[in-house]
Order: sequence, then C-alpha cells, then structure tokens
Amino acid sequence: MSIRIGILGYGNLGRGVECAIRQNPDMELAAVFTRRNPEDVKILTNTAKVCPAGEAAQWKDQIDVLILCGGSATDLPKQTPEYAKLFHVVDSFDTHARIPEHFAAVDASAREAKKTAVISAGWDPGMFSLNRLYANAILPEGRDYTFWGKGVSQGHSDAIRRIEGVRDGKQYTIPVEEALEAVRSGENPNLTTRQKHTRTCFVVLEEGADAKRIEHEIKTMPNYFADYDTTVHFISEEELKRDHSGIPHGGFVLRSGVTGWEKEHRHLIEYRLKLDSNPEFTSSVIVACARAAYRMASAGQYGCKTVFDIPPAYLSAKSGEELRASML
Amino acid sequence: MSIRIGILGYGNLGRGVECAIRQNPDMELAAVFTRRNPEDVKILTNTAKVCPAGEAAQWKDQIDVLILCGGSATDLPKQTPEYAKLFHVVDSFDTHARIPEHFAAVDASAREAKKTAVISAGWDPGMFSLNRLYANAILPEGRDYTFWGKGVSQGHSDAIRRIEGVRDGKQYTIPVEEALEAVRSGENPNLTTRQKHTRTCFVVLEEGADAKRIEHEIKTMPNYFADYDTTVHFISEEELKRDHSGIPHGGFVLRSGVTGWEKEHRHLIEYRLKLDSNPEFTSSVIVACARAAYRMASAGQYGCKTVFDIPPAYLSAKSGEELRASML
Repeated sequence: MSIRIGILGYGNLGRGVECAIRQNPDMELAAVFTRRNPEDVKILTNTAKVCPAGEAAQWKDQIDVLILCGGSATDLPKQTPEYAKLFHVVDSFDTHARIPEHFAAVDASAREAKKTAVISAGWDPGMFSLNRLYANAILPEGRDYTFWGKGVSQGHSDAIRRIEGVRDGKQYTIPVEEALEAVRSGENPNLTTRQKHTRTCFVVLEEGADAKRIEHEIKTMPNYFADYDTTVHFISEEELKRDHSGIPHGGFVLRSGVTGWEKEHRHLIEYRLKLDSNPEFTSSVIVACARAAYRMASAGQYGCKTVFDIPPAYLSAKSGEELRASML
Repeated sequence: MSIRIGILGYGNLGRGVECAIRQNPDMELAAVFTRRNPEDVKILTNTAKVCPAGEAAQWKDQIDVLILCGGSATDLPKQTPEYAKLFHVVDSFDTHARIPEHFAAVDASAREAKKTAVISAGWDPGMFSLNRLYANAILPEGRDYTFWGKGVSQGHSDAIRRIEGVRDGKQYTIPVEEALEAVRSGENPNLTTRQKHTRTCFVVLEEGADAKRIEHEIKTMPNYFADYDTTVHFISEEELKRDHSGIPHGGFVLRSGVTGWEKEHRHLIEYRLKLDSNPEFTSSVIVACARAAYRMASAGQYGCKTVFDIPPAYLSAKSGEELRASML
C-alpha cells in the first residue's frame, strides 16, 4: 500500500511536491488543500481531490502525511503546530534564527498527539545542514564555508521590485570563484560578505523612470545590496521573460580541516548543488522526508524531528538489504 | 564521563584512530591491543595501555567501544563477529561485494549479545555511500557517477611491486577532468573505465632491471592496468621517498537527475573529498561512528548497523539543541 500524501498550499512548492510524488511509486497524492476557491485551483494529478483548507481535518484517516507548503514568515509558525495535532507533517520552515522556537512549538503538539513532524526540510536548511553536521563530526578541527548561487534570491528580487519606477526585476546571487578556490586550496581564508558573493540585477523600468536614481537606490540599499559588489542591467520586459523566468539556485558547503597528531594533514569536504528549479528540488527533499516521517511514526518515534534525526535509510524507498547491496 | 575506546590493530588506521580520539574531548583511548609483542609497539597516548590482543576480553567492562583496525581480506570477517559478542564495535570493512554476508554474520553475534556493531565506516564505503543514498532518495530519476582520486591505490601499488625487477613503486588513480565536466554539464554520459580514470605509476628499478619490459608488464596487466591509460615514470629511490611518501586520496560522488511534471528541470548533486591522508580521514569517520554506536547502544538499538542506519545527530558531540541552533 502506498503512502497517502496531502498537500496544504498549492504554489510553486505545492506543485513541486505533486511532481515529486509522481516520481516515487510508493506514494500517492490524495488531496490538495487550498485557501483559494478549490474550483480555481487546477492540479496535475487526475486521481487527487482539491478541497478547501478548512476541510483538512476530515481527511485525518485518509492521509498518512500532510505536507505544509506555506511560507515561513506567517503560515508555518501557525500551521505546523496546528496540523501536527491531526497528521504526521513535513514543512520547509527556513527562517534559520527561529528554528529553535518553531521546533519547540511543533514538538509540543506532535508529542501530545503522538504524531511525527519533520520541520525545515529542503536544501538550506536541509541538505546543506546535513553536510555541515557530517563534516563537523568527522573533522572537529576545521572551518566551515557556505556559498549560495548562482541562483535567484526571492527576497532580493522583491526588494528591487518595491523601488519606485521598477516594473519588474530579478536578482542573482553569485559566489565569487576566487573565494571558492581559496577555500579549496586549504588556505582557510577570512572572507568578508563582499568577498564571498556578488549580486547581479536585471531590471525592467516603468516608462520614464530614472535609471540612474534606481541603480543608485539598489546599490546602496542597506542589508540587501550595500555590502556587495552589485551590477544592475536594465532590460526589456520581453528579455526578462525570455532569459530570466526560471528559478535556478544552488551553492556550496565546504569544510576544511586537519588531522594527525601534529595536525599535519589537511582535508577538504565539499558538497555542491546546481539546481534548475529551487522549489522542485526543495519539494523532492520534502517528499523523501515525508517517507521518513511515515516510517518514524510507524516505529513509534513521535515528536518534532529534523534531517539530523532521520536515519538516512528511512528516506529511501529501498529496503536496508537492497541499500547495503547496491549503494554501500 | 567520556567514551572509553579500545583499538585492535595498530597500523596506519589504528594510529589514525588514536589521533582522531585526541580531537574529540568526549572520548578517551583506554587501550591498544596488538598481535605483535606489546613492548615493540610505541603509541602516542601516554594514558593508554598496550596489551596483547588475547587479553582484550578482560577489558570488557573498561571499554565502551572497540574499534577494529584490521584488514578486510582476512582479519575483519573473523574479528568483527567475534568481538561483537563482547563489545560494541566499529570496523571499516570495505570489500563492497561481501558486505551483505559480513553484515549477516556481525548482526547475528551482536543481537545475541545485545551489542551495537557499526560496519563499513569510512569514506567508500561510508561517506560516499551516504551521498549516493541521499542523492538517490531525493532524485529518484537520475544517474550516479563515482570518481576516485587523485590518490594512491594500495592494491595497484602492491601489484607493481610484485613485478620482477621492481624495487618499489606507487600508483596514483586520477579522475579524467573532461569526464567530470561532462557529468557536471548534465549530459548523462556513458563512460567507459578508460574514460573515467587514468593511472600514473612511479617505479624504482632494481639495478640492471629491464625498464622496457617492466613498463610493458604494468601497462598490460589485466584488471589492474590494461583497461586504463597508464603512464609509467622511472625514478630514483630518493625521489620516491621525497615526493611520494604520502597517502592522499579522495574523489567525487555525483548524481544528475530530473524533476518536474515533464522532467523539464535538471539538478546536479556533487560531493567531493580531497584528503591528504586516506587512513586518517577514514579513522576520523570511524571515531564519529564509535560515538554513534555508543549512543545507539544506550538507546537499546542493538545489532549490526551501517552509516545508513545512524541518525546523523548521533555522530556529533553536540546536543540536538546545539545542532539545531548552530548548523541547521
């Protein structure tokens, strides 16, 4: 019998989850829950239903794991503790600084209801976090480096679009190749914000807007751009659509460390992601975590969990025996 | 109280374990067991004892985890099931094809004695295996590639040294950069053995040996060299000592896969190791696994385990709370 999945929230992430389920024969999509009018939401899976978010509770016994595809700012802090009272759940809460409080709230709900809740599934937090943990456990004496990109930053693109006179825009975060090479060489460099990443913006102007003023506003925007070498390109709406409608992302997690009685040997561990679609990759991690949540629940492991707590084999559809024979 | 470790077998790996323990303040080395005369074995840790291998059983209550540092060909298939009757153990059994039978033998012993045994800890099998598993669980539709090197292959160096007229030699396995780039580009190439790796040999001749014949023997040696582009350099004993006395290794695990309803998006996951000392890095993984074995045992999780079964947090000295706050 396959694992029955529900999706709450059908944006880029929800649709990515739907696509990922299709690639995993041990899973099926049962229903999508939406705050919009269900009739306005067209999904891709013929066999699944679209229901109002308010009806989710009625699906308690027809869904094994509910995947929460809302945003981290306001949706998930409320939704995850709430739905963990009814379902095993997975979310991709990604506000790093607030993970401890989110964990505590979800853990309380899930334990009380004997449910398993995996939070912060994705790639950062998620696969990048795992790689930081493994690398630190193996090389206790060393330094960590995380680089992001090349990829589209939603937050920075939004910041550009809020500027007066900007019709549309996209921002790419780009790791500095020289900085990456310095880390790989084992130099353990101290890198400033500016030395690690550059930012490139593609901006479509409103008619008659002052390009010079807008470029200045972008480049001097505190927190978002002022600490970076930023390049601004003005392009047409057609060019933006043609060349910049994707949502690629990725990055690098590196740890450079030493071993030996006199710390005489250097080692480098590098993990890299190059993603055509940020939300679809995130969704793919989430779906593997939904399988793990189902298995942890079956083993009586209730409460809030993160990728740090999941035995890797639980993420795979293969049996322990198959995994040992084929991948070890 | 720290985790008390015993080491059985004091070669490169045993010494690496000793060095790694020093970097982990929650662990201490209690004793080294050797088949040699203990008086001939000089270890680095003042506070630890050197004892005959035959006395290990007497340390049952003074050692929490025994690390088995013997070889995979003949030592570990006997030792791991045997010592798993007395101790929680970790080994680095690396004969991939025989892992299932080794697992079964160790599992039977460990379950019976309520011990926890982690086998095949290291980087391949080990960290490379983990990365294959994670990448496959996330991207079910895709292709795997593993490249090794640049590094010294012990087996191939031994094969060179067995040739008549060879005094000494070292062999480096080198991944082909173009093949790596083809994988990274998402082409999903079919790569032959020859296209993936080259082999470079540094050979010291006996006086009067026939270089031409030896080069030919190396390059045509079945299994070891015949399927590769092999380069042979003849050098002096001094040069070999000066330039080739290290044991570096490493490699790459890549998975290239697709997501999306129409498989329209490509993704690349790449894990890379660049190691100055193969045995010391392997030892560092083993020691983190010893911590995990101790914790799994404390949680009543007995039997044979691999890295696939270990919740990542168990490998780290930090608490779950610390990990979530600092690495997630």
